[in-house]
Amino acid sequence: MIDVPVSTSKVHMQEMILPNDSNILGNVLGGKVMHLMDVCAAMSALKHCRNQVVTASVDNLDFLAPSKIGDFLILKSSVNYCGTTSMEVGVRIDTENRKTGKLKHTASAYLTFVAIDEDGNTVKVPQVCPNTDDEIRRFSEAKIRYNERKLKL
Amino acid sequence: MIDVPVSTSKVHMQEMILPNDSNILGNVLGGKVMHLMDVCAAMSALKHCRNQVVTASVDNLDFLAPSKIGDFLILKSSVNYCGTTSMEVGVRIDTENRKTGKLKHTASAYLTFVAIDEDGNTVKVPQVCPNTDDEIRRFSEAKIRYNERKLKL
Amino acid sequence: MIDVPVSTSKVHMQEMILPNDSNILGNVLGGKVMHLMDVCAAMSALKHCRNQVVTASVDNLDFLAPSKIGDFLILKSSVNYCGTTSMEVGVRIDTENRKTGKLKHTASAYLTFVAIDEDGNTVKVPQVCPNTDDEIRRFSEAKIRYNERKLKL
Amino acid sequence: MIDVPVSTSKVHMQEMILPNDSNILGNVLGGKVMHLMDVCAAMSALKHCRNQVVTASVDNLDFLAPSKIGDFLILKSSVNYCGTTSMEVGVRIDTENRKTGKLKHTASAYLTFVAIDEDGNTVKVPQVCPNTDDEIRRFSEAKIRYNERKLKL
Amino acid sequence: MIDVPVSTSKVHMQEMILPNDSNILGNVLGGKVMHLMDVCAAMSALKHCRNQVVTASVDNLDFLAPSKIGDFLILKSSVNYCGTTSMEVGVRIDTENRKTGKLKHTASAYLTFVAIDEDGNTVKVPQVCPNTDDEIRRFSEAKIRYNERKLKL
Amino acid sequence: MIDVPVSTSKVHMQEMILPNDSNILGNVLGGKVMHLMDVCAAMSALKHCRNQVVTASVDNLDFLAPSKIGDFLILKSSVNYCGTTSMEVGVRIDTENRKTGKLKHTASAYLTFVAIDEDGNTVKVPQVCPNTDDEIRRFSEAKIRYNERKLKL
Repeated sequence: MIDVPVSTSKVHMQEMILPNDSNILGNVLGGKVMHLMDVCAAMSALKHCRNQVVTASVDNLDFLAPSKIGDFLILKSSVNYCGTTSMEVGVRIDTENRKTGKLKHTASAYLTFVAIDEDGNTVKVPQVCPNTDDEIRRFSEAKIRYNERKLKL
Repeated sequence: MIDVPVSTSKVHMQEMILPNDSNILGNVLGGKVMHLMDVCAAMSALKHCRNQVVTASVDNLDFLAPSKIGDFLILKSSVNYCGTTSMEVGVRIDTENRKTGKLKHTASAYLTFVAIDEDGNTVKVPQVCPNTDDEIRRFSEAKIRYNERKLKL
Repeated sequence: MIDVPVSTSKVHMQEMILPNDSNILGNVLGGKVMHLMDVCAAMSALKHCRNQVVTASVDNLDFLAPSKIGDFLILKSSVNYCGTTSMEVGVRIDTENRKTGKLKHTASAYLTFVAIDEDGNTVKVPQVCPNTDDEIRRFSEAKIRYNERKLKL
Repeated sequence: MIDVPVSTSKVHMQEMILPNDSNILGNVLGGKVMHLMDVCAAMSALKHCRNQVVTASVDNLDFLAPSKIGDFLILKSSVNYCGTTSMEVGVRIDTENRKTGKLKHTASAYLTFVAIDEDGNTVKVPQVCPNTDDEIRRFSEAKIRYNERKLKL
Repeated sequence: MIDVPVSTSKVHMQEMILPNDSNILGNVLGGKVMHLMDVCAAMSALKHCRNQVVTASVDNLDFLAPSKIGDFLILKSSVNYCGTTSMEVGVRIDTENRKTGKLKHTASAYLTFVAIDEDGNTVKVPQVCPNTDDEIRRFSEAKIRYNERKLKL
Repeated sequence: MIDVPVSTSKVHMQEMILPNDSNILGNVLGGKVMHLMDVCAAMSALKHCRNQVVTASVDNLDFLAPSKIGDFLILKSSVNYCGTTSMEVGVRIDTENRKTGKLKHTASAYLTFVAIDEDGNTVKVPQVCPNTDDEIRRFSEAKIRYNERKLKL
């Protein structure tokens, strides 16, 4: 029916905002968005390394536009760059207005995941092999952020 | 970060199977898959007509391969063909093994939705304009199913 | 207080439709109904064979009447007929209007389940022993559907 | 398929115990049982008076037997007796072992609900008309409890 | 940032009432309150004995004031008194009006939990050592209730 | 039973980690922690301004220690500093080991919320009046972060 592409670390998600995901004015709860963002990014990290992963950090996150009950949250994520056992995942979240179909950029975030084995020990992960111009740009930018994060520790 | 395509009726979803979605042997509950399938298809129908929609029918559905806790369900849907107020949506569900990344075809289904206005009355929907070869094939096949369903009533 | 009958494959369920089960017009999501339908039918299958079960297929399903927030969904299921390792379960879903108490037939469906052991292998199931006229009619009709499904494979 | 009886205040529910309903030893959480018990009883009260209802009190509740993941909770409730605006509902909960089909009495409880209108004001409810011996016994016993509760206030 | 006190059996919880926790008039479902009450009390019991616990009984429970969507439920619990393997936990639930901040006493309850080991056998629990006047009063009152409950069995 | 303090912006929450909140190795999902963190912080913001609030941003967030199924998440939050319509809320999350009672610092975060009225327009909020040494320190530090965030825009 619809062809399934070769699996990469790219993940697409779409979610309808339900009543329990919003406050009494119908605005989506920030926590719901963060929850989806983490699940989406975790799937990217897991696809990249084929091990279980745990969230290690989230870079600064700004909510740029409101989302309302009945709207769609559209999430896209992919692994940008890897350290020895860590992976930086970029997530972009857009909101599609259910009546107009208009898309608004809701938030973008960088999450870092660490790969672990069944005993909870960290595991080495393969480096990302960027191919397209976009992937190469993300790789380079992520590498800079990776080094900045290491300096802060 | 990642470019957002022009909105069509196509919907992609990916979901990690959580403990509450499975029986005590770790097999996903059929009802969980059906729930996701309906949500995915409803978003396609809603995107096509920009009105609220209700599920009218589901054609015969076969589960071809098992899905387990921790695996990913990958759903893809699009509107194939429309009657005056109804839309046939095709959904394909694959399961990605969390360890190997291998995809298995889990199920495919045709769901029919009806568009309604705020008072619950049915509303006319635009016809699908198929462009690619795939879309044209789906349109033709869906038209045949549409006429067969009408004969059965 | 209330006497508990001998356990058979018959299952009764009643559910109040909550906000998260419905779209923004207050109509129950088809996927919620399908989820409940599967859980109800799976309990019937499990009671019949006393093994874990997985959903194998759902026959064509029509939603005959809308259900709204606050209404009750009433589900009834029982095993109609068995193959060597499979069981056909019939489910009938009615909606009770919360104000008038009026019942409307919402949907009926036939689901097929397969019994599996702890290793995921299929397991033989006992045949149904129909007693009442109703059970005998369901048994005969289900046997015809069972043979028709086998022809399609 | 299966005949739907005339609606009374009787409610039957069956639920499979899922992972999230239990502690790490696989025992059902008492709070999950109480939640289901309240939903089941509230449906009985609502069916009796056809108004919205709120839980006013729960009499002493003892858990007599443990329930485990994968078992079925079977709930039965009916309105026993009414005050001017209140209804006593009796609920009996049994647990069906998923492997043996054996039923164990899990808990019985008496809940009192009050009927309210759209403004939240209490509304008069009709008295119960007990017919069978069982209903008459429950009516008489509930009347005694009703009067005892009034004395305590 | 905020200092964490030494762990005792005291548990504080606050919860915002979401749409799915309430009926169509916006009143919280009694079952939701009971569910939270049990979780809060179970955490107190578990903290006291550092074993898994199961709910054994709930004393009479009265709902004194209504709670609405958007309001906060504030729960506080602590272990009052222990038998050989059982613990009485007191829970107090208040509702904070989201607009005025006013607190209303919603309900108070005494729950009894039993400590169990990994095989489901009951385990001895340490006695409570009351220090403050409040704790001593609760201890004494709970001891009386404990003996009354034993007489009823 | 237990005395309820005068309402401030301080919020305490405790949550038991359930199966659905964790991956297949039993580690809590980062998204679950972020969801709770946002709910906890939103309650603080709402208590401070008594209007609805929406999440505007989250500062960099590090997960310092893992949390497992059955452990308790302990969240504490309070409003540190306010802009004209925005509030910075500090949240500290600790994990209590269910067997040993030991607390580990899991994460700390600063979230910014904006107050809105029923039409979704921003609303002025009162400034924080810090009293204790701790509150004064948090106020001063938050003021610096507030000005830094403004520079970045």
